[in-house]
Amino acid sequence: MPRINGERLLGDLRRIADFGRYESGVHRPHLSPQDIEARHWLSARMKAAGLSPTIDGIGNVIGRSSGEGPRLLMGSHTDTQPRGGWLDGVMGVIYGLEVARAFAEDPACAGLGVDVASWADEEGHFTSMTGSRSFIGRLTEQEIDAARHREDGTPLRQAIASAGLSSQPRLTLEDGRYRAYLEAHIEQGGYLEANHKRIGVVTAIVGIFQYRVVFSGIQNHAGTTPMPIRKDAGVAMVRLAGAIHDAFPALVGPRSVWTIGKMSVEPGAPAIIPGRAEMIVQFRDADRAVLERLEAKLNELVAEAQKRGPCGVELTNLSRTMPTVMDNKLLDAIEAAARTQAPDGWMRMPSAAGHDAQILALRLPAAMMFVPSIGGISHHFTENTADADIVLGCQVFADAAANILRAP
Amino acid sequence: MPRINGERLLGDLRRIADFGRYESGVHRPHLSPQDIEARHWLSARMKAAGLSPTIDGIGNVIGRSSGEGPRLLMGSHTDTQPRGGWLDGVMGVIYGLEVARAFAEDPACAGLGVDVASWADEEGHFTSMTGSRSFIGRLTEQEIDAARHREDGTPLRQAIASAGLSSQPRLTLEDGRYRAYLEAHIEQGGYLEANHKRIGVVTAIVGIFQYRVVFSGIQNHAGTTPMPIRKDAGVAMVRLAGAIHDAFPALVGPRSVWTIGKMSVEPGAPAIIPGRAEMIVQFRDADRAVLERLEAKLNELVAEAQKRGPCGVELTNLSRTMPTVMDNKLLDAIEAAARTQAPDGWMRMPSAAGHDAQILALRLPAAMMFVPSIGGISHHFTENTADADIVLGCQVFADAAANILRAP
Repeated sequence: MPRINGERLLGDLRRIADFGRYESGVHRPHLSPQDIEARHWLSARMKAAGLSPTIDGIGNVIGRSSGEGPRLLMGSHTDTQPRGGWLDGVMGVIYGLEVARAFAEDPACAGLGVDVASWADEEGHFTSMTGSRSFIGRLTEQEIDAARHREDGTPLRQAIASAGLSSQPRLTLEDGRYRAYLEAHIEQGGYLEANHKRIGVVTAIVGIFQYRVVFSGIQNHAGTTPMPIRKDAGVAMVRLAGAIHDAFPALVGPRSVWTIGKMSVEPGAPAIIPGRAEMIVQFRDADRAVLERLEAKLNELVAEAQKRGPCGVELTNLSRTMPTVMDNKLLDAIEAAARTQAPDGWMRMPSAAGHDAQILALRLPAAMMFVPSIGGISHHFTENTADADIVLGCQVFADAAANILRAP
Repeated sequence: MPRINGERLLGDLRRIADFGRYESGVHRPHLSPQDIEARHWLSARMKAAGLSPTIDGIGNVIGRSSGEGPRLLMGSHTDTQPRGGWLDGVMGVIYGLEVARAFAEDPACAGLGVDVASWADEEGHFTSMTGSRSFIGRLTEQEIDAARHREDGTPLRQAIASAGLSSQPRLTLEDGRYRAYLEAHIEQGGYLEANHKRIGVVTAIVGIFQYRVVFSGIQNHAGTTPMPIRKDAGVAMVRLAGAIHDAFPALVGPRSVWTIGKMSVEPGAPAIIPGRAEMIVQFRDADRAVLERLEAKLNELVAEAQKRGPCGVELTNLSRTMPTVMDNKLLDAIEAAARTQAPDGWMRMPSAAGHDAQILALRLPAAMMFVPSIGGISHHFTENTADADIVLGCQVFADAAANILRAP
């Protein structure tokens, strides 16, 4: 079996963290100068590993292998959240690179190919999953024309030009080139740690349903307006939010999550009865049936509130991302490798966050593997994973890749 | 008895509404050019009525009567809310002026004195109840130094200078000059209209207790953070707000009001569990015992929430304005006048909004009288009162004033 080199793997991870280093983490949003530098460094490392790298017209870095045998595509992303962690995304890219190197060094892997990808803008500074959508042909020129940086408003076209990528074509998936897409990632949650496991075999990427709820009341004087005639949009919001938190526990699965992350009232003054209120409700689960049950309950609660009055309640669906089920044969291969390397140290689990794998899964059999996040912390510069877990994960990933490519 | 002149009264009200006219209402914030013009016009009308007017160093306009007999102080304010109504405040000032004129025209009122005041900045554009507090000696020079316009930040000193009032002394209450302070005002609510009454005999001005409640949780990823370990500050706020709305109805009086006018969560993003939330809770009642009961319950609910967790809950009192009970003899005099002019058309009621009378009541026996607001609308340019109600109210006010001054 291929043997990965833990020192080389950790060395590359530490080196790429220099591009945009922030405290113990990294600040490297898509197409920032640090992001571009990191992509050029990655290209050079790919070349040194015997791959043919290209930085394409959207910023994807893709290193192609030269052999003619069966191939896998492996990757993740090297862009980061603002002041984010040093592993979120990039670990999966360097895993791919290390697996490619380990294959090249193992005569038993001769002819097995690994292409490595760093998908552009997974963190969605311009649009969501920009690079992987471009690669599978689901990102239009019009969408690129319209996209602007979510914080500073820079047009994506301008950022691409500043990066010197305007004349580069966008690479797209070549039919038949790959058996599958594999992605490794830090968990970004605390399930593995809480269960004392070191490898997560990802069964599905959760679906996310999201809604805006707007409450319409009548703005009025908080002193002279008697309680019985008030139409207080803030009260209506508090009542519906409470009803959601009361009703959902009976309907969810063991790993469902639901969040009201945004709540506001207008005009928001202490002595004025709110005339309008708004909240965003989001829920996630790996099981579509659970999502649909929660949606039905939300519709029911809104209809009840609307009927009861005194405020109007308007529910708008903002998005419905369906769960992505990972390929079973690929999961079995990852599990088999995990059993060998860490007999009691693995578990099957869904991913509660979105990943490029859900995009690639639209065109290829796809699977994901997690390593533990210390304290479950992510999207913060203190994000970390034990070195031993990083190295173990890469070896499991390499073994799984070899098994998949050797299968008949 | 003195006979007021309804045409003259309405004429003055319509004329002063020219200063800052906005749609069917008035925009005349304290010390705006329109406010200053209105004060000069009012001074001239006072002089024409035989009073000696002064615009003092804070902007109060006070017209003093010349007689040596018993005297009343009557007034309200001529400044307005932004784009406010044509009667809020100014009606009570013009009532005073009309009563002074009616007394002067009635030989039976010879020797009875009415001084008329327009208190500066009742609407609190710079500080709260600025003019009436100055008059009773409860506004320091330091407070004036520090005060700035709540919207544009102009220092109060600068606004006073621009109005040409810097060299004017501030007038203060002369001990023994007045038997009482009387203030008429539009109701600004809908109780009189709902009860088909035309005169409100104001028993008390409500007290207002106000609190900030801050919830401290842990900000985290809305996908990867399992429900059982979340510390969601937004959920904590929704639960406490709901508990307040559940518990208060059993503890309040028939006219108590409570409002959560401000609610916010941080960072306020759909996919982030709120780490902090904040709301402002306010309640009003004319009965101090009710206010204290509600405060005790709020303390209890916060303590329970704090104990239950998982979020921290911090309660801070922002203000406790005690109810102001009006003088009973004065109320009886207003009621007697109302019985004569509108036998079934009056009721006793508290004021749910604050008024200068609560400041004057700290130094003088004080009472208030309301006339109906059409549709209960106030602090809006569509605010209005039927002409016949305006005229009736002024006659009741004149009769009450005569009765009070003639009492032994």
